[in-house]
Amino acid sequence: MSKFLERRKKAQQIMAEKGVHAMQVTGRENYYYLTGDVRNVARLFLPREGDPVIIVFAEEVEAARRASGIEDVRGWRTPPELMQHFFGLVREHKLVDKKVGFCIHTNPGFLVYKFLKANPKMNVVENEEILMPLRYAKDADELAAMRRAARVAETGMQAAMAAVKPGVTEIEVAAEAEYAMRRAGAMRFNASTFVDSGPHSLHLHGGAGNRKIEAGDLVVIDLHPVVDMYSSDLARTVVCGEPTKKQQELICLYTEAQQNVIDNLRPGMKVGKITELFKAVFDRTPEGKRWITGPTHGVGLEFEEWPHPSHYFAHVNLEIGENWTLSVGHSILPVPQVGGIKLEDTVLITASGAEKLARDL
Amino acid sequence: MSKFLERRKKAQQIMAEKGVHAMQVTGRENYYYLTGDVRNVARLFLPREGDPVIIVFAEEVEAARRASGIEDVRGWRTPPELMQHFFGLVREHKLVDKKVGFCIHTNPGFLVYKFLKANPKMNVVENEEILMPLRYAKDADELAAMRRAARVAETGMQAAMAAVKPGVTEIEVAAEAEYAMRRAGAMRFNASTFVDSGPHSLHLHGGAGNRKIEAGDLVVIDLHPVVDMYSSDLARTVVCGEPTKKQQELICLYTEAQQNVIDNLRPGMKVGKITELFKAVFDRTPEGKRWITGPTHGVGLEFEEWPHPSHYFAHVNLEIGENWTLSVGHSILPVPQVGGIKLEDTVLITASGAEKLARDL
Repeated sequence: MSKFLERRKKAQQIMAEKGVHAMQVTGRENYYYLTGDVRNVARLFLPREGDPVIIVFAEEVEAARRASGIEDVRGWRTPPELMQHFFGLVREHKLVDKKVGFCIHTNPGFLVYKFLKANPKMNVVENEEILMPLRYAKDADELAAMRRAARVAETGMQAAMAAVKPGVTEIEVAAEAEYAMRRAGAMRFNASTFVDSGPHSLHLHGGAGNRKIEAGDLVVIDLHPVVDMYSSDLARTVVCGEPTKKQQELICLYTEAQQNVIDNLRPGMKVGKITELFKAVFDRTPEGKRWITGPTHGVGLEFEEWPHPSHYFAHVNLEIGENWTLSVGHSILPVPQVGGIKLEDTVLITASGAEKLARDL
Repeated sequence: MSKFLERRKKAQQIMAEKGVHAMQVTGRENYYYLTGDVRNVARLFLPREGDPVIIVFAEEVEAARRASGIEDVRGWRTPPELMQHFFGLVREHKLVDKKVGFCIHTNPGFLVYKFLKANPKMNVVENEEILMPLRYAKDADELAAMRRAARVAETGMQAAMAAVKPGVTEIEVAAEAEYAMRRAGAMRFNASTFVDSGPHSLHLHGGAGNRKIEAGDLVVIDLHPVVDMYSSDLARTVVCGEPTKKQQELICLYTEAQQNVIDNLRPGMKVGKITELFKAVFDRTPEGKRWITGPTHGVGLEFEEWPHPSHYFAHVNLEIGENWTLSVGHSILPVPQVGGIKLEDTVLITASGAEKLARDL
């Protein structure tokens, strides 16, 4: 039995347990996870019992069938044909007022909105409720891809760090980071590259703009390359030129806090414990107390996937398992007049602890 | 009166006409359009009458106030504080069961889903219904930014075209395109760079993978740089090496079809007419008949914005106005055994016709 067929069987089992009648899978991450087919804008219909159906653009039918091993692949050439395929399945499986899963986390808002509007009697649930219990623990192939993505992120970070000089713009630093990551094999970036310098380093989420970096600036760099469908999430903060004593101190404080989490992470621990471990270090100093909570999220097919306690408060109670891959860091320590610091590493939870996927840089 | 204040006043007028009580603006595009503040993850609350409120991360309060000129800027340091600000406004303005706008088009799906779940009695409408009637026609500053974005896209396209050689991967071509665009000032890419070669050129949407380009391949390149918040959307199809007669013929056919649209576009024409103008040329040959409908969408703050007739069928009946900026091309002409062709230009509708923003390459 192929790995992807096995995943579909397990998903069907969870659907049965949760009373979900079918999943409409439209996010490229869940689609890949269940089919092995790398494709944008495809639909997988997975009923609780029986065989799946793929719906793709007509010219992609053969490629999707070959890559997935799924027999029933239906093609469309006009948007109304695409809709007919879907509504046909809804009728055939009598789903109009049933519990049906939809990819909420990886779809654009307008697709989610239109799906909810088009199916007013359906009890729509997040496909993540069914699939993330499977996706949390990564298998050997997934981990190998994530290690490759981590190598690519390191390469990008080194290029970015080397580019930080007085008079260089944030955009120019992003240029070097992305070029190095592409040359090293990034198939895309799962989120924009952030280069937040000087006052921008205090911001929660940044970007990259025309601001010229000045000597003495803190510069937060956050990278999200994807290799063979799997993401890395890596952030570092550097100083342009010689750090002041205070900057050095704050970077050391963040490093210590991050290390405290990594040293203590264990399977069986609750996600919420990560916040406590961070605070145990940060709360020792008045500046550390300024740290913004939001210390972790999953990393895998998405650069930010479940568990995601900042967006789903209930996730703090999830129990971390072996082979989970989590980001540790992620949120900003903003210190007015000094700047903001953010470190972020993707770590693998092992039987005995946690291991950073990227090297220290 | 500042341009941004004027836009808010006009939006409030449309809200009154449409019976919308307030807008919760969370997409960075609508947020910028109404405030002039370039910021990720900010919220603007605009009631139908009275003054707006901005909600941002505590360290960004002063920057947001300065950039927007809006007095009432509220800061948060924890996610529950953020929620309290919002729910306070909902209570204060008695919105629980009212008609309220939310950014549907530019938000990720999970935010839309959570907003709908958290406000079950609210009649949620798309902010785009209120704002796009304003955003369709671009003013002089917007057009200047879009021309700058078009220059950046040209630079990227030239770099990509020069990189297409046998043995080079799709990713390597994307690397050169993006590096050139970043060096020319792209603040981000509003969508991934597509480089679809050989069999991939037949696909509806592609990406960039490890496939090595071969002599004789068609290669579809699609670029989406953003400059000063405004997007370009530019696609070209090139042949690796000498084109065959058939490839040459198909590229000429697409060029002619695109030119037929551009020559005939006028203010007052309906969006659906663009499809007819394309088909008038494509339907002349059996291969042209394979062209997939989906010929246009708006371009501006988003690389794909309203009008979007592929996603909102009713948009075919919208009347095109002066200073609108539309993509012309966009959809694939897939010809088995030969490959796929896609051309796409962003055009400006003038009083007398349509003008391409990027030069012919």
